[in-house]
Amino acid sequence: MILFILKDKRDYSTLKEKLQLSSSSYKFLNLYGKNLLLVWPDSEAEKIVDEDIEVAVKTKKSYILASNEWKKDPTSFKVKGTEIGTNKIVVAAGPCAVESEEQVVSVAKAVKRAGASILRGGAYKPRTSPYSFQGLGEEGVKILKTAGEETGLPIVTEIMDTKDSEVFKKYVDMVQIGARNAQNFSLLKEVASIGKPVLLKRGMANTVEEWLQAAEYLLYGGDGNVILCERGIRTFEKSTRFTLDIGGMVAAKMMTHLPICADPSHPAGKRELVHSLALASVAAGADMLLIEVHPHPESALSDSEQQLTPESFEVLMNRIKALASALGRSV
Amino acid sequence: MILFILKDKRDYSTLKEKLQLSSSSYKFLNLYGKNLLLVWPDSEAEKIVDEDIEVAVKTKKSYILASNEWKKDPTSFKVKGTEIGTNKIVVAAGPCAVESEEQVVSVAKAVKRAGASILRGGAYKPRTSPYSFQGLGEEGVKILKTAGEETGLPIVTEIMDTKDSEVFKKYVDMVQIGARNAQNFSLLKEVASIGKPVLLKRGMANTVEEWLQAAEYLLYGGDGNVILCERGIRTFEKSTRFTLDIGGMVAAKMMTHLPICADPSHPAGKRELVHSLALASVAAGADMLLIEVHPHPESALSDSEQQLTPESFEVLMNRIKALASALGRSV
Amino acid sequence: MILFILKDKRDYSTLKEKLQLSSSSYKFLNLYGKNLLLVWPDSEAEKIVDEDIEVAVKTKKSYILASNEWKKDPTSFKVKGTEIGTNKIVVAAGPCAVESEEQVVSVAKAVKRAGASILRGGAYKPRTSPYSFQGLGEEGVKILKTAGEETGLPIVTEIMDTKDSEVFKKYVDMVQIGARNAQNFSLLKEVASIGKPVLLKRGMANTVEEWLQAAEYLLYGGDGNVILCERGIRTFEKSTRFTLDIGGMVAAKMMTHLPICADPSHPAGKRELVHSLALASVAAGADMLLIEVHPHPESALSDSEQQLTPESFEVLMNRIKALASALGRSV
Amino acid sequence: MILFILKDKRDYSTLKEKLQLSSSSYKFLNLYGKNLLLVWPDSEAEKIVDEDIEVAVKTKKSYILASNEWKKDPTSFKVKGTEIGTNKIVVAAGPCAVESEEQVVSVAKAVKRAGASILRGGAYKPRTSPYSFQGLGEEGVKILKTAGEETGLPIVTEIMDTKDSEVFKKYVDMVQIGARNAQNFSLLKEVASIGKPVLLKRGMANTVEEWLQAAEYLLYGGDGNVILCERGIRTFEKSTRFTLDIGGMVAAKMMTHLPICADPSHPAGKRELVHSLALASVAAGADMLLIEVHPHPESALSDSEQQLTPESFEVLMNRIKALASALGRSV
Repeated sequence: MILFILKDKRDYSTLKEKLQLSSSSYKFLNLYGKNLLLVWPDSEAEKIVDEDIEVAVKTKKSYILASNEWKKDPTSFKVKGTEIGTNKIVVAAGPCAVESEEQVVSVAKAVKRAGASILRGGAYKPRTSPYSFQGLGEEGVKILKTAGEETGLPIVTEIMDTKDSEVFKKYVDMVQIGARNAQNFSLLKEVASIGKPVLLKRGMANTVEEWLQAAEYLLYGGDGNVILCERGIRTFEKSTRFTLDIGGMVAAKMMTHLPICADPSHPAGKRELVHSLALASVAAGADMLLIEVHPHPESALSDSEQQLTPESFEVLMNRIKALASALGRSV
Repeated sequence: MILFILKDKRDYSTLKEKLQLSSSSYKFLNLYGKNLLLVWPDSEAEKIVDEDIEVAVKTKKSYILASNEWKKDPTSFKVKGTEIGTNKIVVAAGPCAVESEEQVVSVAKAVKRAGASILRGGAYKPRTSPYSFQGLGEEGVKILKTAGEETGLPIVTEIMDTKDSEVFKKYVDMVQIGARNAQNFSLLKEVASIGKPVLLKRGMANTVEEWLQAAEYLLYGGDGNVILCERGIRTFEKSTRFTLDIGGMVAAKMMTHLPICADPSHPAGKRELVHSLALASVAAGADMLLIEVHPHPESALSDSEQQLTPESFEVLMNRIKALASALGRSV
Repeated sequence: MILFILKDKRDYSTLKEKLQLSSSSYKFLNLYGKNLLLVWPDSEAEKIVDEDIEVAVKTKKSYILASNEWKKDPTSFKVKGTEIGTNKIVVAAGPCAVESEEQVVSVAKAVKRAGASILRGGAYKPRTSPYSFQGLGEEGVKILKTAGEETGLPIVTEIMDTKDSEVFKKYVDMVQIGARNAQNFSLLKEVASIGKPVLLKRGMANTVEEWLQAAEYLLYGGDGNVILCERGIRTFEKSTRFTLDIGGMVAAKMMTHLPICADPSHPAGKRELVHSLALASVAAGADMLLIEVHPHPESALSDSEQQLTPESFEVLMNRIKALASALGRSV
Repeated sequence: MILFILKDKRDYSTLKEKLQLSSSSYKFLNLYGKNLLLVWPDSEAEKIVDEDIEVAVKTKKSYILASNEWKKDPTSFKVKGTEIGTNKIVVAAGPCAVESEEQVVSVAKAVKRAGASILRGGAYKPRTSPYSFQGLGEEGVKILKTAGEETGLPIVTEIMDTKDSEVFKKYVDMVQIGARNAQNFSLLKEVASIGKPVLLKRGMANTVEEWLQAAEYLLYGGDGNVILCERGIRTFEKSTRFTLDIGGMVAAKMMTHLPICADPSHPAGKRELVHSLALASVAAGADMLLIEVHPHPESALSDSEQQLTPESFEVLMNRIKALASALGRSV
């Protein structure tokens, strides 16, 4: 596959003619202010020569748009007022599941006070058992929206079904793809078309390469505002719920221009481990953290073991700030 | 959670009253000709006593409907004329992806001749890369349907999106949930409502328990005609594409009343290994096999390394028949 | 690296001269009746030309002696009277741990009666906890020897320490390297020098390639009578103790000339699963099985959950015989 | 099992009498200045009452001596002048393999200058392939000793064979058990008896619990000066050589009183990842780091991809110091 970076302000008419005459597959895209053209297979792409082409990037990688082979500078983008992918580390916090307006608004205020700049919370909940609390659905999204407005925090929440994309278009600032849908390609295509920033979790059995390929679906059909979120992979170890793959996260950062997020809550499985995993993620270079905070974790309807109290979250934020500062970053 | 098996031909009016007065969650179901009632949590369920109750099965398991704690006899069901879950081993065969009517009809005839009794083929294809062939979609389903009618074979194909359920209702005899959607709970709920037999693949990182919990979604919302399909889990080993977990398959069979299928093609990754994995699966007790066969594997649009030729498939079928006979089963 | 197969009955004097003049590393070996010469690195090896050389096999593989690139015919060898690696499947059976002479002799008689042709039993026991029964050591080996003599069965038992090699030289017919010592390279070198057939278990985290490299240590320093034993790898799945990697076993068989054994007892972890895993292993092409049998499993000092009773073992042997016959093999 | 902490300066004569009359197993130990008595099984241990007993700690854990159930304060100990397990983070650095005196002395001086306080280097090398450089053995140990004396740095190096314990007794300040021997119980027992501090690597397929059980062998037979070293576990991910399990490391720290070390070099597999993994380990609470440094990594005889240059190590040390300071620790 060859990625052609095209010169600006042209109509590419001779180029289009050449493509139509060739037997290649091709696609024009605009990402990060650049006009791009993908052509494959190689045997056909190599024949394309045109003066509207600025650079031709040939690659063996299956995640060319997500790779930093053509885009060296790190990508950053705004989720409402909050910019992700800069020197400033962004912390998104909130409850595992939206349970009530009172719960979410109270957490939103507390996490904002402690320094979080995005509100997270699950409305559509992927639950292993059909007998577990399945989330409040659209009502939950509206509650999040309300809490976001009251606090001025942008909101991020998970989508589970292509049928729900209108709800997300209407109410949500950032769309989350969960680990169990990380290779739900129908959903990836649908989410790309929503036109909102996306937080893409890594599937618990996905290699770093597959994770970048999932991001490729989002870049191919969307506008490029994607952050990759490491949340733990499945291994034989059982003292933690999942194994936070910090090495994989660092390797990904070296392969892509997209920013990287870490979720220390799910791999921890117990709140005692969350602080250390959050700090380790920041030290390893994470651009964002996603942390579960609940006003009364012990009575939470899901993930009660791993959610922090607002008090513990505040302590953690102070530790993160000290660490970020030692690394030459801010929070 | 308690599962109550109810006496037949009653209106359960006193029972319903008691449930409404309690603060429990409950659900009436009819599965395998039995009227069932699920009540949870335990503290509430334990208070329910009624003369319309035949048996109360209390369980700690999160997959009660799928477990054999309440249903000791193995479940069997028909996919059009083909019965699954009996002493006769059912073989479904066909190409990885539907590419053309000619391709599918020719394979369908060949696999039928060799002894297959279901036709498989992918129309909606989950592909790791957005640049890989994504399948023919609805057109592919219609091609399968045509090939099924020409040969008299029922057809099984994978669903990827809740939006496509009408297509599956109309054309397909058995709906397949793929490994990458094994915990796509929205899809599981939608498929349960289609009213067709379901082949549920195990996710590549799912425990046997999670696999049974996914089946529970299908039983909770559907009619109970579900077969579990082991297709390999992800491990560190790279000489095979996935690790066929025959032990997990056998363990599952001891935990459930549902029949079990093995897919030897995907874990093999190379056609040289498919025969041995198919035979091992039969020896371990599989009720069904799902095998990729292509008229010209080397030019297939997907999985070209692992598809058998019709000739090799015929040899395999003869080996399977000999083995089945030694085990007191037939094909 | 190049493996030279040398012509017979020569003194290789000109060849030796050339080697001494070169700056290569080299080693002369005799394996399976062939005089062999290994020379590395490639840049030096490629310069060696001599008329005593019959064939030169150049390889990128790190397990050249174990690979079937130079030796196409399957290797077979005798453990006292029992031949391993032929069309006849060999079954080794006996208790996890040697506990007393009475126990071992009674099991030995029972497994022989049922058709086993090697007696297994642990004398030096690798135990995860220092508080578990550590085995009878040399006394246990002597008990095995006695039971072997009483029944005419050759004995196989595990070595754990290079210091014990004299005991194994004196009493044991086949030396077992356990999974936890599969990359204990000091032990591999020592065992190679004992001069007895070796059963090499695969480490629970070893790839097939690493397993063959461990065998390479044994072939490099020994006489080539090695059988590879798959005993389950460590994965996330917990319904079985380990995941029996039948695919890896089949892949190994395609890469090496050495015979292959399967141990269905350790991956099963529970005796209910042992039959199915044993049958699956045979169907997949195992040349040997290693099965734990105890006169009273419930009171065994180790692995009490997974050992078969002699009665159950007899039933299994009959099933194995039927299966082997359907596959054109015998037991 | 019950662990009795005994009162000081007694002869325990009545206690010993009671033990001899009981049918329990028992062992007296002295660890960290405390006289201890282990008695099992529970049914017997519970009967033991004596006035020389200060506290009785009953546990279900299989690693009682290593657990913090009886010893709440963190353990620290000296390796020659260097104290491990305090607020000060200890860095051990040096080449993967000892190749020559010149190489080791030059690295030793460089890492000391940058702030390392222990010299590491492999003399006996566990190599997957018999054709790889196997290390200089005893000669390599002596070279390390020389370099240690020239720089005043204590030395740590790996033992592979019980037969080599005299060499380690004579020359080495801290004995390392490598990942491939983490469940080589004969070696664990032998090393316990050497009487030197031990660095115990976690096996690549060992759970945190098994790692602590391996430490238990060392505490049961030794003097308690053990540090646990996380070095990456084996998972499906291939963008790194191993998956550094920071969560498992933190979980271990919560279960034991022993100090914890991290080895960022082996899981990284490439030097570009080493800095981030080292910083993450420190942020997560590691008490020690073990880092590979080579004067000319590109020409190293082993692990050439992952060794740092002295210059890169110095940069890393400065980053570690800044980070440690933000965490309230020093280096």
